[in-house]
Amino acid sequence: MTQPSTTILGLGAMGSAVAARLRETGYATTVWNRTAAKTEPHVQAGSNTAATVAEAVRAGELVFVVLLDHARVREHLEPVAADLKGRTVVNLVTTTPGQGRETAAWAAEHGIPYVDGAIMAVPSMIGDTSARLLYSGDQHAFNTVRPVLETLGTAEYAGEDPGVASLKDMALLSAMDLMLLGYVQAIAMMRTTGTSAADTAGEVEAWLAAMLPHGRELAAIVDGGTYDTGGQSVDFDRFGIRSLITASREQGVRADLLEPHQKLLEELAATGHGDSDWIRIIERLTIH
Amino acid sequence: MTQPSTTILGLGAMGSAVAARLRETGYATTVWNRTAAKTEPHVQAGSNTAATVAEAVRAGELVFVVLLDHARVREHLEPVAADLKGRTVVNLVTTTPGQGRETAAWAAEHGIPYVDGAIMAVPSMIGDTSARLLYSGDQHAFNTVRPVLETLGTAEYAGEDPGVASLKDMALLSAMDLMLLGYVQAIAMMRTTGTSAADTAGEVEAWLAAMLPHGRELAAIVDGGTYDTGGQSVDFDRFGIRSLITASREQGVRADLLEPHQKLLEELAATGHGDSDWIRIIERLTIH
Repeated sequence: MTQPSTTILGLGAMGSAVAARLRETGYATTVWNRTAAKTEPHVQAGSNTAATVAEAVRAGELVFVVLLDHARVREHLEPVAADLKGRTVVNLVTTTPGQGRETAAWAAEHGIPYVDGAIMAVPSMIGDTSARLLYSGDQHAFNTVRPVLETLGTAEYAGEDPGVASLKDMALLSAMDLMLLGYVQAIAMMRTTGTSAADTAGEVEAWLAAMLPHGRELAAIVDGGTYDTGGQSVDFDRFGIRSLITASREQGVRADLLEPHQKLLEELAATGHGDSDWIRIIERLTIH
Repeated sequence: MTQPSTTILGLGAMGSAVAARLRETGYATTVWNRTAAKTEPHVQAGSNTAATVAEAVRAGELVFVVLLDHARVREHLEPVAADLKGRTVVNLVTTTPGQGRETAAWAAEHGIPYVDGAIMAVPSMIGDTSARLLYSGDQHAFNTVRPVLETLGTAEYAGEDPGVASLKDMALLSAMDLMLLGYVQAIAMMRTTGTSAADTAGEVEAWLAAMLPHGRELAAIVDGGTYDTGGQSVDFDRFGIRSLITASREQGVRADLLEPHQKLLEELAATGHGDSDWIRIIERLTIH
């Protein structure tokens, strides 16, 4: 299946970018969109179109699903289960891990090879190796369509659990989100003294770049399974975080972003873990 | 004042490191500690000691305060205001910006040149250029004692506001804290699938390193003063953060660290800012 025919369901910004890239790299493309007008520029550029979802999926050996959300995926795929026989489905819709697993289970039930994808890129990056696309689920199906997937960006296989591509995407986005909130907090604190956001961001960027490797040390403690490290303790960290919160409030800046860390530390102290390494907070996050 | 005599008040881990470094680089040092036994190794290594705080501060042209906290600073300095006449005081105690300003005001009232310091290093780093020490307050005093300060680590002057060294320290530590919580959240999510913390930390480190420059883009929007950027909106971000929270909970991981971001976005949406750039959350943090 080196040059399979492809179908793209959904022509939002991401679906359009995927369709255009596949077409430009020589794949036969059939596009379908709920609002048919959106197919016109694609047809003019050389794609085929189809009147119904069933007709669209029968036209492609490889079906990309790029609809708005998980509800649309169920709504559009369920009626065409029979038409999808023999096709490989790659679901590029942003879903939670549980939703990805649900669609995978449905596909397995109908004998449809299924790969769940997560796109760590914006549409304008599609086709560039800087676009990172994670995939999980049926490894044989992934390997078969891999050459096609690699035209979209860097294709990474994350594991057999169909939810893991989405989970890894969400885990990395969570880490990025918290890092960016670090910039927000620092900028908010410093601008109370007239320091520009640009100046603070420059300082924060250099500082975080130097501090990034500390994550590996934290990970080693978590993997080690003992929080009896003699390192920075819960009680020491409680004092430190309280100072950050006080400093922020003194400057007239809410400390909402810092409060959950303090709350988790207080929970640990209240359950007799004041002497543990502070990274034990990860155990409070995990519902056992 | 190229080789001033120095006094070090407080011989905890940091005070001891400061005293040792000054002694080793040729400065005359007088040490004082509430528990006198702690002065012994310093005296054996060549420092002088003093029976009282008053006697100690009279022995040094430059007085380093390295006591436990702000309360101890007030308690120990107030009775010796007269003895501090003509000395320069460098306060290395970790304090909030407001506490630093309070001590500076007290010093000004008594005609004592005062520099407030913040140490971004652990004691073992003292003496190395990788130890970063921020100072603020009396710029003339800072310039005068700068050669001494530079023996302790890289000395940065942060501004005339005596609270700003501490504030900058706290702002950078807040950013680091949130970044490290990003590792914690990602590791907690991924380990539910059996992924080691080390593997996740490696992924997060590479990802965050690539994402660090986004902080500058956020800063440019904040400095621009308009949140009408056409970029990622509050409403779009609400959807995205909700997905992260759902994904985390589906895996049995509490989303406490992510919730404040959602709360701030909901506040913006409720006040008619759903179309604004998401970075407008910084305005919710600032109490006007």
